[in-house]
Amino acid sequence: MNQVFRKYCILIICFVISNQCIGQQIRVFESAKCNKDSYFVNVLKPEIQSKAPVVNRIIQFILNSNERNKTYEELAEFVDTFGGRLSGSPALENSTDYLIAKLQNENLDHVYTEDVLVPKWERGTEWAQMVEPRAQRLGILGMAGSASTPKGGLKAEVLVCNSMEELNDISNDKIKDKIVLLNTNRVNGSYIKFKLDGTRMVADGGGVAVMFRSYAKDTVYSPHAGIIRYYSKDTQIPVVSIAAEDSDLLHRLSKRGVKVMVNLHLESTFYGMTRSRNLMADLVGTQYPGESVVVSAHLDSWDVGQGAIDDGAGVFISWRALSLIKKLGLKTKRTLKLILFTGHEMGRFGSKAYVEKHSQNLQNTSVILNSDYGTFRPFGLTLSARNTRAQCIVYEVLQLLHKINATELVVGKSYDLTQSDGNEFMRAGIPASGLLNDNTKHWYYSHTNADTMSAINPYYLDLCSIVWTAASYVLADLTEMLPKD
Amino acid sequence: MNQVFRKYCILIICFVISNQCIGQQIRVFESAKCNKDSYFVNVLKPEIQSKAPVVNRIIQFILNSNERNKTYEELAEFVDTFGGRLSGSPALENSTDYLIAKLQNENLDHVYTEDVLVPKWERGTEWAQMVEPRAQRLGILGMAGSASTPKGGLKAEVLVCNSMEELNDISNDKIKDKIVLLNTNRVNGSYIKFKLDGTRMVADGGGVAVMFRSYAKDTVYSPHAGIIRYYSKDTQIPVVSIAAEDSDLLHRLSKRGVKVMVNLHLESTFYGMTRSRNLMADLVGTQYPGESVVVSAHLDSWDVGQGAIDDGAGVFISWRALSLIKKLGLKTKRTLKLILFTGHEMGRFGSKAYVEKHSQNLQNTSVILNSDYGTFRPFGLTLSARNTRAQCIVYEVLQLLHKINATELVVGKSYDLTQSDGNEFMRAGIPASGLLNDNTKHWYYSHTNADTMSAINPYYLDLCSIVWTAASYVLADLTEMLPKD
Repeated sequence: MNQVFRKYCILIICFVISNQCIGQQIRVFESAKCNKDSYFVNVLKPEIQSKAPVVNRIIQFILNSNERNKTYEELAEFVDTFGGRLSGSPALENSTDYLIAKLQNENLDHVYTEDVLVPKWERGTEWAQMVEPRAQRLGILGMAGSASTPKGGLKAEVLVCNSMEELNDISNDKIKDKIVLLNTNRVNGSYIKFKLDGTRMVADGGGVAVMFRSYAKDTVYSPHAGIIRYYSKDTQIPVVSIAAEDSDLLHRLSKRGVKVMVNLHLESTFYGMTRSRNLMADLVGTQYPGESVVVSAHLDSWDVGQGAIDDGAGVFISWRALSLIKKLGLKTKRTLKLILFTGHEMGRFGSKAYVEKHSQNLQNTSVILNSDYGTFRPFGLTLSARNTRAQCIVYEVLQLLHKINATELVVGKSYDLTQSDGNEFMRAGIPASGLLNDNTKHWYYSHTNADTMSAINPYYLDLCSIVWTAASYVLADLTEMLPKD
Repeated sequence: MNQVFRKYCILIICFVISNQCIGQQIRVFESAKCNKDSYFVNVLKPEIQSKAPVVNRIIQFILNSNERNKTYEELAEFVDTFGGRLSGSPALENSTDYLIAKLQNENLDHVYTEDVLVPKWERGTEWAQMVEPRAQRLGILGMAGSASTPKGGLKAEVLVCNSMEELNDISNDKIKDKIVLLNTNRVNGSYIKFKLDGTRMVADGGGVAVMFRSYAKDTVYSPHAGIIRYYSKDTQIPVVSIAAEDSDLLHRLSKRGVKVMVNLHLESTFYGMTRSRNLMADLVGTQYPGESVVVSAHLDSWDVGQGAIDDGAGVFISWRALSLIKKLGLKTKRTLKLILFTGHEMGRFGSKAYVEKHSQNLQNTSVILNSDYGTFRPFGLTLSARNTRAQCIVYEVLQLLHKINATELVVGKSYDLTQSDGNEFMRAGIPASGLLNDNTKHWYYSHTNADTMSAINPYYLDLCSIVWTAASYVLADLTEMLPKD
């Protein structure tokens, strides 16, 4: 059962998230090869194993003290207070101030921020109504950055395309004056480029708007938020995400030759770039303070839902990792550096800015732990690093977590396993690691109105917190950094 | 795995659907006791077993001919064409006409309707917005039959109660001028009465509106539609269903002592009673035409979603059972009677009217098969009948379905297993049977915007169709009726 579960989980990571990893090597790590590395076996492995008593203290502290459920409760208070924290919004900046105070209160070292320019965009009134062959409200979300419809909306016939190839084969006279529905998630290569190209093709053909089938395969009538970019001013037509169920409906009607007319109303305002902040805090290392293990997540979220799963939970297990280590009176040889990125959902502005600003000393980062893909029941960690010794080290760290059954490592070739702010570090050659957890239902929630505290299990969140805290501690206290690829 | 699945399924049936069956006897039927009944063993069992070749023909016909996927495709065309078919709406009457033509086209005997008065109610514009401590739109659905808010809506503080007992203990001065949230699904006894009593208590205390936590436990930010009745004119305050996630949010805020203010706008119009129709069709029996096996579902649905799962699928496997039997050139000793009830969601008006009108000869009904709780992967049937021989007969019928792994029978004491139009027959002493299927996710969809074709698997629907058709055929062709309790 567990085995089946895990395999399913890995498949999901592979197909749903990356959309790019077919043919690449994402696999469950097998530790046999570690035995061939005598330095690892004789030096590193015993060193990691010697941390078992401390890891057991961490487990006890999180599960059997006042800390139990505290991550959940503090996260709930945070997301209930601020709600969605969209890039450029007062909610994001206020929530950043709130966390600054919280981190200072925990007496973490060097609580500081760095300014980042992020897009400020606001969703206005938006709705879509099928008016032929009958009246039915459609579930949509305007894409961030989309053009608005004319005042009073627009009314047009819908043309359904089930692939980019199909869209490509359609003559412009058929596209002209239509709302084009791209009823597919199956995309070769970048999903962003798919949206960019699809929108240009529709605009060039004289289409009046584009509806993209909601990004995620799994949804329960809840369209997914997303961003749209345009190639040029000429291609700026309104773009929305439509619930998978309604995309199916329009597809079926169209296949039967039924003419479908839709009224679309979309108000979308882009205010330009505005100041936001990455938020950092350290637990300075005792031996190599200039070297670090980064523990990270993103502070901004979508405006729909509460941003509880994406990425409030990641934020809270990350700063709590430092807090819990400090409360336990533990010290690490290397600095533990918390980074809470801004502007992620609008295009990873925070992590890009951080990596650029710190490019001089980024190589002093041993590994970046980045949590942005669920805090459901944890199985272990993912690691985007080719280097076998790096993989062996992380695998051995996970063996300290057998009490909570979170000993599994999944490794990938490069950017496949994080698809988040960790990628910006990966590009600079830094190993990146994420939580391996049962996120089979992640896309029921993430980027939708259903991203709320109700989708989070306090006990599993504590287990994730254990994985995160233990891994942070052991990796930061290791005598050496993870080898780079 | 299968075993675990089934047990889970039975638990779900027990706790989610009935809310009443704790302490009652719902159990997987064990056939050992059938061996003690020599008449069953020597006469009925061999007779049922002799139907194996016909059942195998049914299986082959549905899975390996042009009939494959046809139930899905015809259902899709139906629900796409008419959408939600609310009691009293033109969509319901038009869809009834459409099915009359379809049944006549299949050359079924006696296609006819009987008038039933049903409530005509319409949902108007409705929304709720939390305005303190911050702005957030709340997911609500007005209850059918609710009073409207004053024009322009109402704004009031929210008082959260987590049980009827808690509401009971609160003094009227605290309820006065408040919107009361009843944040619970755990109800002793009737859920309808819970809503009736809760609403009266709030109205009597001077509260201005009631929000009931969305009925189903499982939801992904999609509130469930439902009905509300009032004790008197004095208690007619607006009543809505609120998404479980938002109910949780208001509860958490309130527990922290945060004042929550909500703007509620609800337009709800009750037009009185109007004419609708139960739709019937027969395959007249060769030997006992006056006796029947009823195959049934309800034609009306909620206005949200498409009414695909609830109960379009039930309607289509039911009429298709007669159609498929006729196409196969099969005859049955007893009449197969299709009944498609109207006015179900508003209070089972159709089935109540039918049972009343036909009370004189209702005892000539052997069993009512009623499908109203999912057409997911089928495991077998449920049976609400105490009589052991009746249980043995249905169990033995199911053993003919081992090729599709749908041999399981779950039996209950009385009204626990149908909770639908079959109950009206049960009250008159007729055994009632439903599909036993993997409906663990039923309430993700049913009564919500997510009740669409996208939630239906064509292959599983074919399997349900097999169970329904085979059971209808064998039970109607048996030399005798099911024994009554």
